[in-house]
Amino acid sequence: MSSRYPFPDLNTLPEDIRAKILEVQEKSGFIPNVFLAFARRPAEWRAFFAYHDALMVPESVGRTSQLTKGDREMIVTTTSAANQCLYCVVAHGAILRIYEKKPQVADQVAVNYRKADISPRQRAMLNFAMKVCIASHEVEDADFEALHAHGFDDEDIWDITAITAFFGLSNRMASVTGMLPNPEFYLLGRVPKVKA
Amino acid sequence: MSSRYPFPDLNTLPEDIRAKILEVQEKSGFIPNVFLAFARRPAEWRAFFAYHDALMVPESVGRTSQLTKGDREMIVTTTSAANQCLYCVVAHGAILRIYEKKPQVADQVAVNYRKADISPRQRAMLNFAMKVCIASHEVEDADFEALHAHGFDDEDIWDITAITAFFGLSNRMASVTGMLPNPEFYLLGRVPKVKA
Amino acid sequence: MSSRYPFPDLNTLPEDIRAKILEVQEKSGFIPNVFLAFARRPAEWRAFFAYHDALMVPESVGRTSQLTKGDREMIVTTTSAANQCLYCVVAHGAILRIYEKKPQVADQVAVNYRKADISPRQRAMLNFAMKVCIASHEVEDADFEALHAHGFDDEDIWDITAITAFFGLSNRMASVTGMLPNPEFYLLGRVPKVKA
Amino acid sequence: MSSRYPFPDLNTLPEDIRAKILEVQEKSGFIPNVFLAFARRPAEWRAFFAYHDALMVPESVGRTSQLTKGDREMIVTTTSAANQCLYCVVAHGAILRIYEKKPQVADQVAVNYRKADISPRQRAMLNFAMKVCIASHEVEDADFEALHAHGFDDEDIWDITAITAFFGLSNRMASVTGMLPNPEFYLLGRVPKVKA
Amino acid sequence: MSSRYPFPDLNTLPEDIRAKILEVQEKSGFIPNVFLAFARRPAEWRAFFAYHDALMVPESVGRTSQLTKGDREMIVTTTSAANQCLYCVVAHGAILRIYEKKPQVADQVAVNYRKADISPRQRAMLNFAMKVCIASHEVEDADFEALHAHGFDDEDIWDITAITAFFGLSNRMASVTGMLPNPEFYLLGRVPKVKA
Amino acid sequence: MSSRYPFPDLNTLPEDIRAKILEVQEKSGFIPNVFLAFARRPAEWRAFFAYHDALMVPESVGRTSQLTKGDREMIVTTTSAANQCLYCVVAHGAILRIYEKKPQVADQVAVNYRKADISPRQRAMLNFAMKVCIASHEVEDADFEALHAHGFDDEDIWDITAITAFFGLSNRMASVTGMLPNPEFYLLGRVPKVKA
Repeated sequence: MSSRYPFPDLNTLPEDIRAKILEVQEKSGFIPNVFLAFARRPAEWRAFFAYHDALMVPESVGRTSQLTKGDREMIVTTTSAANQCLYCVVAHGAILRIYEKKPQVADQVAVNYRKADISPRQRAMLNFAMKVCIASHEVEDADFEALHAHGFDDEDIWDITAITAFFGLSNRMASVTGMLPNPEFYLLGRVPKVKA
Repeated sequence: MSSRYPFPDLNTLPEDIRAKILEVQEKSGFIPNVFLAFARRPAEWRAFFAYHDALMVPESVGRTSQLTKGDREMIVTTTSAANQCLYCVVAHGAILRIYEKKPQVADQVAVNYRKADISPRQRAMLNFAMKVCIASHEVEDADFEALHAHGFDDEDIWDITAITAFFGLSNRMASVTGMLPNPEFYLLGRVPKVKA
Repeated sequence: MSSRYPFPDLNTLPEDIRAKILEVQEKSGFIPNVFLAFARRPAEWRAFFAYHDALMVPESVGRTSQLTKGDREMIVTTTSAANQCLYCVVAHGAILRIYEKKPQVADQVAVNYRKADISPRQRAMLNFAMKVCIASHEVEDADFEALHAHGFDDEDIWDITAITAFFGLSNRMASVTGMLPNPEFYLLGRVPKVKA
Repeated sequence: MSSRYPFPDLNTLPEDIRAKILEVQEKSGFIPNVFLAFARRPAEWRAFFAYHDALMVPESVGRTSQLTKGDREMIVTTTSAANQCLYCVVAHGAILRIYEKKPQVADQVAVNYRKADISPRQRAMLNFAMKVCIASHEVEDADFEALHAHGFDDEDIWDITAITAFFGLSNRMASVTGMLPNPEFYLLGRVPKVKA
Repeated sequence: MSSRYPFPDLNTLPEDIRAKILEVQEKSGFIPNVFLAFARRPAEWRAFFAYHDALMVPESVGRTSQLTKGDREMIVTTTSAANQCLYCVVAHGAILRIYEKKPQVADQVAVNYRKADISPRQRAMLNFAMKVCIASHEVEDADFEALHAHGFDDEDIWDITAITAFFGLSNRMASVTGMLPNPEFYLLGRVPKVKA
Repeated sequence: MSSRYPFPDLNTLPEDIRAKILEVQEKSGFIPNVFLAFARRPAEWRAFFAYHDALMVPESVGRTSQLTKGDREMIVTTTSAANQCLYCVVAHGAILRIYEKKPQVADQVAVNYRKADISPRQRAMLNFAMKVCIASHEVEDADFEALHAHGFDDEDIWDITAITAFFGLSNRMASVTGMLPNPEFYLLGRVPKVKA
């Protein structure tokens, strides 16, 4: 099993993309495969990561969000599991472990979030995300009200929806193109001594 | 039924977004609701339309594609129908009618593409798109080979996948936020005298 | 794509069938394909249209119904979309537009009736019809009560059920035999000048 | 559990319906509930049984069919089980036992026709019927060819389709209206001494 | 249709298994196929029947249960029908008829338990069993509460769950190995004169 | 989230069960929760573990199997993921990592076995196991042949079926009773220095 599409040589990439990738490598210690897999199409790469950052790093676009970093990664991991996307479950599960400081939570939500050690608020958030993931055409007022009851406002609901929808895109791209998680992700955040 | 999220006033929007919207209005005669619905979050708006253009107007990013404009809109209309997204079926169905110069084709693929008046090559394309839409985790070599047999190469398959995935995002956003199609779309491309 | 079964010559048909077909042609300006497709088996033709008229034109059998003509066609269009029957969605969608005097409603209910511009009473009616269409074995008292709350009585519920069930028959026959909608249906009721 | 809709008094029914019901009673020893349940709406009753006879008793309308009586009842029992219709599985299962002279075959096809003691030709017939029942929009040339390989011609395929579709109507009506099988049906054809 | 795996000769079986089988034969008048089909693997045979008896004959292990014998067989028949297991529906349907002294109840729950002549308590029990059968990962507090409302306690719920789960195992083994019901089961409990 | 059913005190358990549990604790360094969760019903505990050992430790019952220990745990992990059973995915995923000496394989098969780094023979094995798990009533000759082509014989197929079926039982019990994995399982086999 390897990617169906060859990764481009880092040195052949447009400067902005190369710089961003090197920055990520510097910070993480390795280059997550999604950065290389999508780089063969620079315009799509730029749009993908701009969208990603607007949703997952809202402060990078001057926005605040009531969703925590852990909430966001939990949505990604849970809905990516529903879409059976190996790359996203493993990569974002790693980030989720780190942000939530819970080494078991990613495995829990990936198998069955109803059994996970998360708050009732997070469970309501995931119920909504799963409906967006699987049956968005059936979302109705009652679904909004269920989130309001847990303190989410409509901007938070937009966030949950957009994150679920964006990673639905990512899941489909990763599965079809055969993108596989870097080995590093499997262990990240699982044991104290592994640096995140 | 109306949008759950208010549209921003055009005059309050960042200049680049306002300019692009006015350009679209100039060309189309009206502002498709997606441009206003997403504008309340400028960073997401920019990423969304950059991604859209990279896939749907490849020449705008210096790329060529063997998929025709009609092929692309046919993928959007068919998979949006599978996701039951009213906005995208009606809006992109209109554009599909215009590009294919077939006033009935959008209704056909929206109900059952297996009965549509399209080429065997287009039917194979839609078979693949539907699998990406519904069960991307099961896509395998045989699915690639079925497309190769119709002359699609791996870049075309990337296109089909990315278009399906991107509009899966769009479908979920539109359905959850309650985005409705502009009345103009319903008739576009149906009768000779209606200007597209 | 054309019908798998040849249409009989109008002149070879039994007189009662031929007369009825000519009457429809006189009234509509064309012969809807269902009249010719089924005519190759006269006994089935007679039973089909007798059943159709008993449900869709109750006054023709001396019965009154609280369902309006538009209600009935709305049920047909919505459940035919769920069954992905091209003929019925296009043909009955046209009649629905005419009866409801809403040129957009057929496209709306065909894609996602939850987003359609219809009354809460009609939405409850369609919720029930969809359950009959997809999971009739699960219909229970609570489903009846939900309709009673909107003013439907048990005779109306019989009507909704029978219309949904009858067009489920029609949908299956049309899809398997390859029956396609006449081109005229696509435009009927969409623009003021088109005579209904 | 009893019918949601009261049965009419036999003596209040139109003469043609009353006569037919008495004839059935004379022949069977009891009145199958479907005859009474539908009689409250005479026009629908007439259309229903005219359609039924055209399909299930083709010689009554001057037509011959290569499907045997047992084949036809096997299609009804199998697809009614898929639709979870208690009335039709029990009533037509009884008739199937009698026609096939196999006291176990109805229980077998109702649970899992793939395990039933039937011919390969009948199994192919049921494969097709189940596709018509569950996913008629996906029926394609290959499905026709699979039946041709077993000696079925296109008229036989029309028969299989129409029987499946007609009893899909019957199943939905029976389940929603709460029509229950007469006690007599449960035992018919199970033991030699029970007269059919 | 016959078993994919040959049955062992009774005389070659370990003494404990042979003795138990002869005892069953003595009592029932025939050897239910499951006893022979599984005997080719003695260790699995012993575990299977030990588990079976612990759940279905609790007094044999010194336990009491508020579920009646009829309740237990009703769970088996209903969930085996959902799993489309011919052996278990026919064999346990027979036992259900005998225990409940209702010759029709097995056919009713096998087709659609919602239409069966059973108590509201039994219907609640089957609702829960079906959820365990089909979506055990979604079982939640509300499901327990629905059973408590009918007088079931948590030990009863363990029973319902374990019976459903154990026969899910049995269903899969029977279907894959091609185990068929003995002819005797089809008639047992249907008519007064047939000895149970 | 904790078990819905209290664990019994080890000292109150029957001697054979207590001894076995202490032996497991001695060997593993902790007591896997399944041993305590099921011990409140000794007869079921004995049958469960006897069945488990007959399938998973065939040499313990004097049988050999062509399935490796890794093959068996891979079936358990994959089908438990399909059933969304948190306990079994985490606990058996740990054992799978150890037996296969592949720290990533459990996460891979739990998310999407089609993307896992396993042999074509193992993938065929999992294809079959998934069909047994999800649609055992549809298993047919072609499924056996697909396994024969990879060198599996009918005894191996019995093994695959029985393991899938047995853990389907285990999955349902674990999910409904709220059995959660011991913390130790999450890390086992992931890093060289962690002793298995």
